[in-house]
Amino acid sequence: MKPAAAEAPFHFHTELRVRLPETDAMGIVFHGNFLTYLEVGRVDYLRNLGLSEGIRPIKGFENVVVSAHVDFKSPARFDDVLTVAARLAPIEKGKRSFTFEFRITHKKTNRLVALGHTTHCAIDSAYHPISVPEDFRITVGAFEGWA
Amino acid sequence: MKPAAAEAPFHFHTELRVRLPETDAMGIVFHGNFLTYLEVGRVDYLRNLGLSEGIRPIKGFENVVVSAHVDFKSPARFDDVLTVAARLAPIEKGKRSFTFEFRITHKKTNRLVALGHTTHCAIDSAYHPISVPEDFRITVGAFEGWA
Amino acid sequence: MKPAAAEAPFHFHTELRVRLPETDAMGIVFHGNFLTYLEVGRVDYLRNLGLSEGIRPIKGFENVVVSAHVDFKSPARFDDVLTVAARLAPIEKGKRSFTFEFRITHKKTNRLVALGHTTHCAIDSAYHPISVPEDFRITVGAFEGWA
Amino acid sequence: MKPAAAEAPFHFHTELRVRLPETDAMGIVFHGNFLTYLEVGRVDYLRNLGLSEGIRPIKGFENVVVSAHVDFKSPARFDDVLTVAARLAPIEKGKRSFTFEFRITHKKTNRLVALGHTTHCAIDSAYHPISVPEDFRITVGAFEGWA
Repeated sequence: MKPAAAEAPFHFHTELRVRLPETDAMGIVFHGNFLTYLEVGRVDYLRNLGLSEGIRPIKGFENVVVSAHVDFKSPARFDDVLTVAARLAPIEKGKRSFTFEFRITHKKTNRLVALGHTTHCAIDSAYHPISVPEDFRITVGAFEGWA
Repeated sequence: MKPAAAEAPFHFHTELRVRLPETDAMGIVFHGNFLTYLEVGRVDYLRNLGLSEGIRPIKGFENVVVSAHVDFKSPARFDDVLTVAARLAPIEKGKRSFTFEFRITHKKTNRLVALGHTTHCAIDSAYHPISVPEDFRITVGAFEGWA
Repeated sequence: MKPAAAEAPFHFHTELRVRLPETDAMGIVFHGNFLTYLEVGRVDYLRNLGLSEGIRPIKGFENVVVSAHVDFKSPARFDDVLTVAARLAPIEKGKRSFTFEFRITHKKTNRLVALGHTTHCAIDSAYHPISVPEDFRITVGAFEGWA
Repeated sequence: MKPAAAEAPFHFHTELRVRLPETDAMGIVFHGNFLTYLEVGRVDYLRNLGLSEGIRPIKGFENVVVSAHVDFKSPARFDDVLTVAARLAPIEKGKRSFTFEFRITHKKTNRLVALGHTTHCAIDSAYHPISVPEDFRITVGAFEGWA
């Protein structure tokens, strides 16, 4: 979480409740399932901005996840309600990749549970990298306050 | 879904939105994930009646799932909102097992997606079967209208 | 598991090792994950008979799962090696559906863990039911000894 | 994957076959499931060195995952066989954390699919950080060639 935006506030929050099959025999959420929680945060974020369309996560262009990182700060347990804060880091004009940043907290106590970020590359239908479309960049930037 | 209660109405409904990792390469929700949806329905049903407690699905006694059955009526896809209707079939006094019945519909169209039921056995701390505790049977029966 | 074939032996076995994320906070495999184990058994069964093709579970025709049933006999835990026995119940000529039957045992102790069956419907590219193709029926029947 | 060990070879490999429920509606493995694949690699690595014990991933001490990172290089699809190479980066005496590094390749083509690393903290039964036990450090170091 070193990008310049690290100190910026989050303007979007969604929440979810931990399901039993997301926990493991250690009694806590299996760490890999946090990438599902980030996915939920990303999809809800895009829907809120009207940027998703039917079964396509982002309308207008495709993307692939190129990297994912999570720092686990404290455990989450069955039936915990988690708040997933999500934001898009500033995207420079013409760039092909964009990064979502996340902070997950335990809703009832505000305890920090995890920090994460995922980087995505915009692609065309032949899977070739393309510049992030301007309308996407502008819509998100207006919401986040960086464009 | 042959029990006498099959024609009875459902009094409890909860909903969830299909997540991307719950779908598979066939483009639809992997059928096994419906058992997760039934789990969500069961946990929400019990919480609504004040019958869960912290991380224990049912307060007062433990249970194990002894069987699960699902009939798949139509596919569910990424981002679909599904309504999970849940009810407990009548439990005779002294019985050791109880059965949850479920009906999953596509919220936007009311299309039937799946019917299912799971049977559970009440157990003590040594994993031995016990009669379903009376307070549980009475609370649920009052809600369902069969006790 | 009431079909006529219930007493018939299983001629195909595959095995898998329980992964940590397949367990839940109750310390055992989440019951819904058994449908993943049945899926593994089915795919391995079909591959063994040369009936799968690339990313298509069955070459030559598509299918949808119409029902799934599992009876849970004893728990499975992290790192347990499970043996999944699979067979196809006899398919009458012209029938549109076929049923896989499964028995899962704990490899080290031969303890019965679960019994299950899944019923599938053969479909064409327009999702309409079709008769199970004869070459599939004959190949499987020859292996199972019922055709 | 910037640690000094980045150029070091991997001495341990395990493999797995992609299961249908691990893929998503995009037709490829959901990126979050790679953390399950790393888990499988880690558990197999420790079992190979006799460092696991029953249902405990590491005998002798507990650990928590403090961070996980994956770079996705190319997609994996249903039924692909993946090779998971795993190694432990050098652990200095007295350190409380240790890092597993992973490289996942497509077995049939040797195509690079993903690189990842997970960092773990050794803890005592009260969840307090402890130094990585010497016998663990020495056994792993002898295998890896750094101790």
